[in-house]
Amino acid sequence: MDSIIKKICAGDVRSASRLIRDIEDKIPEARAKLKKLYAYTGKSFIIGLTGAPGAGKSTLTDALITELRKSNKTIGVLAVDPTSPFTGGAILGDRIRMQSHAEDPGVFVRSLATRGALGGLSQAAGDAIHIMEAMGKDIIIVETVGIGQQEIDIINHAHSVLVVLVPGMGDEVQTMKAGLMEIADIFVINKANRAGAKQLQMELTSMLNLSPKTTDNWMPPVVMVGDAFKPETFTEDIAELSIKIEEHHVYLQQSGKLTERMHRKAMAEINDALHACLLEPVIKSLAARGELEKFAEKIKNRKADPYSVAEEITQRFLKKENEK
Amino acid sequence: MDSIIKKICAGDVRSASRLIRDIEDKIPEARAKLKKLYAYTGKSFIIGLTGAPGAGKSTLTDALITELRKSNKTIGVLAVDPTSPFTGGAILGDRIRMQSHAEDPGVFVRSLATRGALGGLSQAAGDAIHIMEAMGKDIIIVETVGIGQQEIDIINHAHSVLVVLVPGMGDEVQTMKAGLMEIADIFVINKANRAGAKQLQMELTSMLNLSPKTTDNWMPPVVMVGDAFKPETFTEDIAELSIKIEEHHVYLQQSGKLTERMHRKAMAEINDALHACLLEPVIKSLAARGELEKFAEKIKNRKADPYSVAEEITQRFLKKENEK
Repeated sequence: MDSIIKKICAGDVRSASRLIRDIEDKIPEARAKLKKLYAYTGKSFIIGLTGAPGAGKSTLTDALITELRKSNKTIGVLAVDPTSPFTGGAILGDRIRMQSHAEDPGVFVRSLATRGALGGLSQAAGDAIHIMEAMGKDIIIVETVGIGQQEIDIINHAHSVLVVLVPGMGDEVQTMKAGLMEIADIFVINKANRAGAKQLQMELTSMLNLSPKTTDNWMPPVVMVGDAFKPETFTEDIAELSIKIEEHHVYLQQSGKLTERMHRKAMAEINDALHACLLEPVIKSLAARGELEKFAEKIKNRKADPYSVAEEITQRFLKKENEK
Repeated sequence: MDSIIKKICAGDVRSASRLIRDIEDKIPEARAKLKKLYAYTGKSFIIGLTGAPGAGKSTLTDALITELRKSNKTIGVLAVDPTSPFTGGAILGDRIRMQSHAEDPGVFVRSLATRGALGGLSQAAGDAIHIMEAMGKDIIIVETVGIGQQEIDIINHAHSVLVVLVPGMGDEVQTMKAGLMEIADIFVINKANRAGAKQLQMELTSMLNLSPKTTDNWMPPVVMVGDAFKPETFTEDIAELSIKIEEHHVYLQQSGKLTERMHRKAMAEINDALHACLLEPVIKSLAARGELEKFAEKIKNRKADPYSVAEEITQRFLKKENEK
């Protein structure tokens, strides 16, 4: 076994951090390591946590870590969130808000910077999750913001999905909920001490009752989490949330749904890897020859349309169906 | 010229709407039409408008339409925003908030639904913009939410980028701003009657003064837009915003930057089209033969890793470099 693989599998933070940085920087050598690492993955329970900016996701994650550490579970946290204090961490220094866990060797927090990278964020997230799995983390929390397509791609790497809402975010949240219904396993109403929390809970519950979950016996619970500045009740709320997460984990295992989720995850991984292995080399090869620039000029001047250009490129690079 | 192409170029709303729907539904025949349509695009000024949920993007768009219509400019609005009342429109019925413009033939509003579509949102947005360009709209406003990777991909289809912030969204906005600096041409502080607006303005201005814009002589202005329920001052604020947009347009034209932006747009279009023409057919072909499922099983059971699988697929589908 490669020494870096051995080190990561032994939980070495420096080696893991270095490989995650190589992924962000798109260092080609990282892939060989990720391939070797894959055999040591697949044993962690992966929680996706998503919500709008300002929903308090980092405070929740922080509190969840404290709660989950009580049962000695080891935790990995991956923040893939351009608005998160964690990811802001890529600029401001990692773990600004995670001071409470900085000294705990059972907790590993990393953020993924999104700047510059044209696409591939979901792939980078998948890779970073694998590294944390190989490190032997029992639970991995992946934090993303919003419910854009990119976030849903990332969420496909998780087994259980928590959606965080806060009261009083206005009309826009209403229409957002329809999309959330499809991806949420557990709803968290955060800052539930605020006005409108009860109403939001009622709305969510009635929407959940209306939506026919024919293939699923799991009814997403709506967990209320109150004021983070009132430690006694807040800790209780977080304990309640962690029980719901555990219940969903047990449900996934017993119903066979965990296998389905793992299959969904594998599909997302193929998709990401094909993007990296098939599409990116073609674009790079064209760019290296200056052809990409020429095509862009033709398109810009309306001498060609993007689809005709892409079809021409495809003909050149892709084998014909009948050649196979 | 195809009759549908002729109709769209004559501004026919029904034909344009039908083609946009075909794009959302990924109807294969849509592509041939888009190819023919491309020659009639490239004359609109495209404004990207982005901001967090609850930032009031739709109210702003609505008011901007009213303002821009005063000079008789025709407008297209594309909402690519899962949290927008427009896009919620895909569920709730288009144009719920656009009642004021529903009777105006100079205004065309459409939303893109994001549900179900695995990727390709940026591509669909690009296609829908082309349709609005072919319709002859002078200005097209593309509304997206947040600053995720997907949103930045979509923003690459715009010539001028407006970023909407509101006071009092907490710490998370702080760290968000670094990413915003890179994409914003104009900042809007919306709901500027709220506490903290002045401070946000000062912070933004000092961040802008610190960031070295070596290749660019445009200093993004910070426009304050107050209470939408106070029509007299609100209308003034929107008029100010529309002047800044026009100034940026003139700047882009005179500095040659508009050509650069159009080039960037063409690059985004090639990228999207290659995704559709090269990557998607490979995935579809594998799926049709049941091979994709088998690969996913192997990955799930750790009998193979995603990159090795993707490389195997690539070898089969992609011509060798030296064969070319």
